[in-house]
Amino acid sequence: MIIIGEKINGAIPSVAEAIAKKNADFIKDLAKTQAEAGAHFIDVCASTDVALELETMKWLIDLVQEATDAPIAVDSPSVEICAESLKFCNKPGLINSVSLEGNKIDVMFPLIADTKWECAVLLCDDTGIPKSGEQRLEVFAAIMEKAKEYKIHPSRLHVDPLVEMLCTSEDGISMILEVMRKIKKQYPTIHVTGGASNISFNLPARKFVNQAFLVLAIGAGMDSAIINPLHKHMMGLIYATEALVGMDEYCIEFIGGYRKGLYGPVK
Amino acid sequence: MIIIGEKINGAIPSVAEAIAKKNADFIKDLAKTQAEAGAHFIDVCASTDVALELETMKWLIDLVQEATDAPIAVDSPSVEICAESLKFCNKPGLINSVSLEGNKIDVMFPLIADTKWECAVLLCDDTGIPKSGEQRLEVFAAIMEKAKEYKIHPSRLHVDPLVEMLCTSEDGISMILEVMRKIKKQYPTIHVTGGASNISFNLPARKFVNQAFLVLAIGAGMDSAIINPLHKHMMGLIYATEALVGMDEYCIEFIGGYRKGLYGPVK
Repeated sequence: MIIIGEKINGAIPSVAEAIAKKNADFIKDLAKTQAEAGAHFIDVCASTDVALELETMKWLIDLVQEATDAPIAVDSPSVEICAESLKFCNKPGLINSVSLEGNKIDVMFPLIADTKWECAVLLCDDTGIPKSGEQRLEVFAAIMEKAKEYKIHPSRLHVDPLVEMLCTSEDGISMILEVMRKIKKQYPTIHVTGGASNISFNLPARKFVNQAFLVLAIGAGMDSAIINPLHKHMMGLIYATEALVGMDEYCIEFIGGYRKGLYGPVK
Repeated sequence: MIIIGEKINGAIPSVAEAIAKKNADFIKDLAKTQAEAGAHFIDVCASTDVALELETMKWLIDLVQEATDAPIAVDSPSVEICAESLKFCNKPGLINSVSLEGNKIDVMFPLIADTKWECAVLLCDDTGIPKSGEQRLEVFAAIMEKAKEYKIHPSRLHVDPLVEMLCTSEDGISMILEVMRKIKKQYPTIHVTGGASNISFNLPARKFVNQAFLVLAIGAGMDSAIINPLHKHMMGLIYATEALVGMDEYCIEFIGGYRKGLYGPVK
């Protein structure tokens, strides 16, 4: 499982405060603790005014790179900010993210074509998030055409099928799981990713929904997730699920994760 | 989800002590709290010497029926003890369990044929637990022949495909999930059940494995489980999973369970 540590995001009040007060130690600590907790990428999202976004990204990326060797997930809704920010990174990381909206892919794919950068792709376009699974797979097919054109191997892509909130759904997440299965079947080396928290919007006891969602999604082929790696219960469930779905022979990773303290005994 | 509360079992040291000391209040409290926590059946398993088993079953069943209206799951490895114990019950409950071993089914099925008793059936026979999924489905087919013969509707059966420990498995639980899916597809009204703890035998941090297993199993059609309903995290995950897999439109049960306090906010 590829863990993208989500905690350095200016949309989180404590991080916004650290950015405003230039509290470098706070950011470095978030980077270090997430990497130690098993994050493979450290997501960096400024979430500031547009005018300040690029300089904030640089400040954050520099700090993360001082604190840890884990590669950066460059996170901005603006493809231009992503394109500029990747220059601050001392090694290839992950672009988070592009989609079929506007010119995002045509800006980003040529830029990372001959690199080792990976890229998250969201299954939406200029009309928004498609309603049906079929439509999302059409968006996916169009994205894969672009990937082929720019010679970006599927193994460098993290496809996010865009999970929507459960509380307004009539049939749960069966459509999303089906989309995940089909994508993974078509391209076995591609990564399927997603956040774990949109799903529970407007519900009480959200963590149960987030955790059960991740388990089901891993069962359907998700192998990359944007989460808080310091959440030990979530991490324990992820390791356990990988063993259960046959991705961890004889539970070696599960037992190893336990020994490393990535998750503890749980009540 | 049909919850079979597992806590009144003489194999649990505190229950064995209560049985030895005839501590009626302890047993009644276990029955009451499990029913209040959402158990649909209260499992009663003496786990004593054979010579004491039947009288212990009677003592336990009487106490449970004093404490709650929830029906009993009569639990014994002996089909004769089950057959005698169901007479102590003031309403139909669940026989836990029979299988193709020996004469179990031919003793039990005629006895419950014209009743509302439900029955757990394990997919094993005199040769033990079959290795492959195909063999388990053969045992299942033979059991369903018997059910047809005795006119026991599939909706009264809880099929336990017998999950084995994960630590010695090479491909996780994919076989078991496939067996569950096939059974549920063939008989949509049948119940698929199982315990949640054998799976994690010999592993550390077992609860993660148990919880992730239950989520995946519900995703594959499990709709009955022998668990501890006082474990709020497990209950929260079960309710969340039912909503996620489309068994709880608009999350009404999930939100209702939260309001009833069946599970609380979790860290």
